[in-house]
Amino acid sequence: MGILIKNITLVPMNGKDEVIENTNIYIEGDRISSIGELKEDIKATKTIDGKNKVAMPGLVNAHTHIGMSLLRNYADDLPLHEWLTKKIWPVEAKLTEEDVYWGSLLSMVEMIQSGTTAFCDMYFFMDEVGKGLEEAGMRGVLTRGIIEEKGKKKEKLDDTRRLHKSWHGKADGRIKVMVAPHAPYTCSPKYLEDIIDLAYELNAGIHIHLSETKKEVEDSFKTYGKSPIKHVYDLGLFKLPTIAAHCVHVDEEDINILRENNVSPVNNPSSNLKLASGFAPIDQMLKAGVNVSLGTDGSSSNNNLNMFEEIHLASIVNKAVNMDAVSVPAITALEMATINGAKALLWDDEIGSIEAGKKADLILIDMDKPHLYPRHNIISALAYSVQGSDVNTVIVDGNIIMENREIKTLDVEKILYKAEKIAKDLVNR
Amino acid sequence: MGILIKNITLVPMNGKDEVIENTNIYIEGDRISSIGELKEDIKATKTIDGKNKVAMPGLVNAHTHIGMSLLRNYADDLPLHEWLTKKIWPVEAKLTEEDVYWGSLLSMVEMIQSGTTAFCDMYFFMDEVGKGLEEAGMRGVLTRGIIEEKGKKKEKLDDTRRLHKSWHGKADGRIKVMVAPHAPYTCSPKYLEDIIDLAYELNAGIHIHLSETKKEVEDSFKTYGKSPIKHVYDLGLFKLPTIAAHCVHVDEEDINILRENNVSPVNNPSSNLKLASGFAPIDQMLKAGVNVSLGTDGSSSNNNLNMFEEIHLASIVNKAVNMDAVSVPAITALEMATINGAKALLWDDEIGSIEAGKKADLILIDMDKPHLYPRHNIISALAYSVQGSDVNTVIVDGNIIMENREIKTLDVEKILYKAEKIAKDLVNR
Repeated sequence: MGILIKNITLVPMNGKDEVIENTNIYIEGDRISSIGELKEDIKATKTIDGKNKVAMPGLVNAHTHIGMSLLRNYADDLPLHEWLTKKIWPVEAKLTEEDVYWGSLLSMVEMIQSGTTAFCDMYFFMDEVGKGLEEAGMRGVLTRGIIEEKGKKKEKLDDTRRLHKSWHGKADGRIKVMVAPHAPYTCSPKYLEDIIDLAYELNAGIHIHLSETKKEVEDSFKTYGKSPIKHVYDLGLFKLPTIAAHCVHVDEEDINILRENNVSPVNNPSSNLKLASGFAPIDQMLKAGVNVSLGTDGSSSNNNLNMFEEIHLASIVNKAVNMDAVSVPAITALEMATINGAKALLWDDEIGSIEAGKKADLILIDMDKPHLYPRHNIISALAYSVQGSDVNTVIVDGNIIMENREIKTLDVEKILYKAEKIAKDLVNR
Repeated sequence: MGILIKNITLVPMNGKDEVIENTNIYIEGDRISSIGELKEDIKATKTIDGKNKVAMPGLVNAHTHIGMSLLRNYADDLPLHEWLTKKIWPVEAKLTEEDVYWGSLLSMVEMIQSGTTAFCDMYFFMDEVGKGLEEAGMRGVLTRGIIEEKGKKKEKLDDTRRLHKSWHGKADGRIKVMVAPHAPYTCSPKYLEDIIDLAYELNAGIHIHLSETKKEVEDSFKTYGKSPIKHVYDLGLFKLPTIAAHCVHVDEEDINILRENNVSPVNNPSSNLKLASGFAPIDQMLKAGVNVSLGTDGSSSNNNLNMFEEIHLASIVNKAVNMDAVSVPAITALEMATINGAKALLWDDEIGSIEAGKKADLILIDMDKPHLYPRHNIISALAYSVQGSDVNTVIVDGNIIMENREIKTLDVEKILYKAEKIAKDLVNR
């Protein structure tokens, strides 16, 4: 009893740069049972024809704020400070639990349709994200972004404690909860120490924004005499497994700290470009042995959640930055979006590659598209030519959550209607 | 007798940054007859429901080499020189007329599917491109790339002369022919003068590569004591209307020359990034009043022909380069891909915007997609969120050449089959 994917081209992302033509994948329960020749005794309850399709691991969006889809295209082409203080924050302050629920579902629809199976979200009303994730059938890390606020310091820590109790390990193990100090410029050193204590208490990883803008780094040197990365390192943050969003403005010392402490920086190319944050030194970090993963950031600074765009950008933008066409090759960009993302989310023992015994989180790309002909090199095609809309089928935890582009788990029409209605209402509230 | 598009959201790109909700577009013959309230006496033979759709001008791909789709994903992640000399040129030398015909058709399918209605192509066997274009129903400028070759100098000029005679003004006026010296580093000053004479003889515009790489500019200074742009200017090239592909490495003097001579640089962001050529100073050129347009370059340095990717990149990459989130806003990137491209192709009296009296070259975007909800700002959605695959309907010269994503003019299945077969054969020839 299982799902058989027959005669497919497989890009397993197993560290070997392999493309296996015309093979079979057999899924039993939530796991990949076998790859290759079929055993005689298999009893497939569902068979998928792999002709003209490529199977690859589901993409991991390692840093996002999915509730922000409600603010997509609401405020663009503005200076960062004005964008945040005059547009984004005033509207976010009006968001209700129900808004975040529907906004998160909208983002999940979009992520599934473009091949993302797992994500790491930082926002608020995170129970709503948990509810949506459970329904959508996705996999994810929930983190409640903690910004220090007078009179609400304990409350916000308690909220994470409660979130962890409610959701960690839930949805058949598809949900993890981590601890998310928003950034060293929104949390004092003392508060960061309290947050670190909480992470020890919960035995949870950390999700934080670090060194996103030049100004942030300059301010950190002014205030603490060191970079944001050195600052949180000195506070002991990196003794916990850490997902560090952005890491755009980092120097050699920062890169050494990241490597020595197994910190996972998340590159968000669309957002870093669109908000004029700058160019992260991806190639240098990767070559130093740092586990760089990929994310979309929120929809209002991107403006979509399409990881294939990020893969494409991570590769080509860094070639130009380094004046080196060999920099961040196709396979490396794909690794950033799969196995490196899985490592960041502390999930690489289960997901991030297609291997027998791992969880069945994978996507099938429809290669029968004009822009995917001819087929000289499948790895290049995946990094440079494939569009999010070429994702045909999405499987998470052994469940088919999208087939022939139809999402099986969610009422898409209702979600679009609700999101549009809430968004219009929101700006007039 | 005509085509009526009812109740549509219109982004006319008429220089006014306008979005007109719930309007009508009436097309008679090859032209837009009226926009807005319907006259009582119209007799539509075809009515298109514009609900949940946006109409905008067809995109203009102002610099490409469409025959190169056969080499898509054939050679990636290589240094430029090795890529050209060891991979691309040896295979291109084996291309036959028939190969270029099918490769060009493959590219046209891809361009139509992602919303491009007009293009400027530089390649060889250009009669095949003309044949394909006529069948596809697209609009385009054919240019035979001239690289100086001993013993073949006159032959190549004659080939352009003959091409002009055969194709200029053909296909109901949908085809123009221009003169295309490949680059100042592949044509001597004397030969460039012969080519300029030819352009005067034919009363035709020029299409040329200029200042694509840092090395090209350095070499020009070594050989001629000036930049490639100053060099061809001094030869008199810019007395003819000129489409100048790339213009990545340009200084203030170059920008002044481009502006004073109404030269149209074509930015090719994907290609310039992927080949590590660098970042063109788009914002500076635009602010100086230069008509910067957009192109994809060939599929082997991109690796697709999706102008929505170029729009997105032109906007976000330049924000990061200039450390200014306001740089190249959404509307400007859209102008680059429409009216500016039309100007470059000397066609802005007929195409590039949706206005009564102009040719009916327009596309309808299907906005009923999760990544296009909610709808705070349509201009932002078009630049930052829309995917090529959201293009639903394509009209060129008043003819519907794609409807509900089905191409009406070409046998897509046959083209994909032929392209794959030729490409596989080509590398083993």
